[in-house]
Amino acid sequence: MNPSKGEPKRAVILLSGGLDSATAAALAQREGFELFGLTVRYGQVHAVEIAAARAVAAALGFSQHREIDVDLRAFGGSSLVGEGDIPDAPRQFTNPPTQASPSVPSTYVPARNTVLLSLALAWAEVLDAERIVIGVNALDYSGYPDCRPEFIAAFEYLASLATKAGIEGHAPRIWAPLQHLTKAAIIRAGIELGLDYGLTHSCYNPDDAGRPCGRCDSCELRARGFAEAGLADPLLSPRG
Amino acid sequence: MNPSKGEPKRAVILLSGGLDSATAAALAQREGFELFGLTVRYGQVHAVEIAAARAVAAALGFSQHREIDVDLRAFGGSSLVGEGDIPDAPRQFTNPPTQASPSVPSTYVPARNTVLLSLALAWAEVLDAERIVIGVNALDYSGYPDCRPEFIAAFEYLASLATKAGIEGHAPRIWAPLQHLTKAAIIRAGIELGLDYGLTHSCYNPDDAGRPCGRCDSCELRARGFAEAGLADPLLSPRG
Repeated sequence: MNPSKGEPKRAVILLSGGLDSATAAALAQREGFELFGLTVRYGQVHAVEIAAARAVAAALGFSQHREIDVDLRAFGGSSLVGEGDIPDAPRQFTNPPTQASPSVPSTYVPARNTVLLSLALAWAEVLDAERIVIGVNALDYSGYPDCRPEFIAAFEYLASLATKAGIEGHAPRIWAPLQHLTKAAIIRAGIELGLDYGLTHSCYNPDDAGRPCGRCDSCELRARGFAEAGLADPLLSPRG
Repeated sequence: MNPSKGEPKRAVILLSGGLDSATAAALAQREGFELFGLTVRYGQVHAVEIAAARAVAAALGFSQHREIDVDLRAFGGSSLVGEGDIPDAPRQFTNPPTQASPSVPSTYVPARNTVLLSLALAWAEVLDAERIVIGVNALDYSGYPDCRPEFIAAFEYLASLATKAGIEGHAPRIWAPLQHLTKAAIIRAGIELGLDYGLTHSCYNPDDAGRPCGRCDSCELRARGFAEAGLADPLLSPRG
């Protein structure tokens, strides 16, 4: 609950600059939430992601947008944070030989969503926010353990125990509105809400100018999503 | 499990520089674990804590000691990270008037232990560590929601879902060996293991030279612990 009644309900949005989190933010806004964006710089190789997060926050009129640094490169273990090559799609599995689950891609960042949600929880507690919004979806949880619905549910339970708000009975809900949507359905939902996907960024491996490579896992998922939605990706089209 | 058999089991120790985490580390070492220390600089006001963590890691012969920055001051909400005055003991409750649980002290840092454990989980996954060790104890959980046994259990469950190691059936356990010990019992355990508590630091509010104030909650708990254990605090005694 908000301290002052009559103010809009607050939501902390984990905003990566990608297509999914932008759509999740737009969906939260449609539900009447005031948006507080949190972008975590966890050692991603590409500054273009951060620039995209800022553009999305500005376009959607976020009340606040904070960026926080947590350099997960200190631990290593993922091609996304500078360990090993980023594979072209289809997914290639270049994890260390100890791992017995080849369905986890090398772009998996150890405990990333646990870290992101824990930081969002800290801010949500200070803001007295009702929701934490995360753009995980059905496509992701084929590969990443921390995108699965049971992970999200377990974090929500943890949040109810971890915080003063939880003791008082108003811990934030963890809202993953894209959880059961395909990429095409996500894109259609965003377009309906007027979201400009030209502001978002998805590529794991852009060139120096920030242009998508068109070959990585993330580019391929995005391209397939737009194709299935019957729409052109504004990121790849000349801007009107 | 470790990649190479015959190597010692690995434990990630959340090492604050305080008396509790140093004792927890010594207990893990006694159980045969190789120690990997993680000190999170989350915006604590006092560098003396970091120096104490380094001294403890060196004294116990940690295999590695990493320090990582996460500036929780970005969110505010605690007197420990520069918001409001640190209360003298007995605990004074200077939280915002919205809070309905006066038993949570103002030194509570929102979601701190969730953030600390999530970072430890990231490193534990890369190290293939069997345990994450945290020095929470019975005295803490009278006041801090994220020191309670049910919180620790919920985090352990989360870790089993959040990680590749969890999918593979070897998620790290969250070990809180001080959970049911009084401060006096903790101190006795550490002394038995030869721990030099003169290296540790507990005060929330030290002077410029790093000397404890002797008045804050944390100093008072420490003093009472040594008194009940019938021992002198080496931090307050002239060094031999």
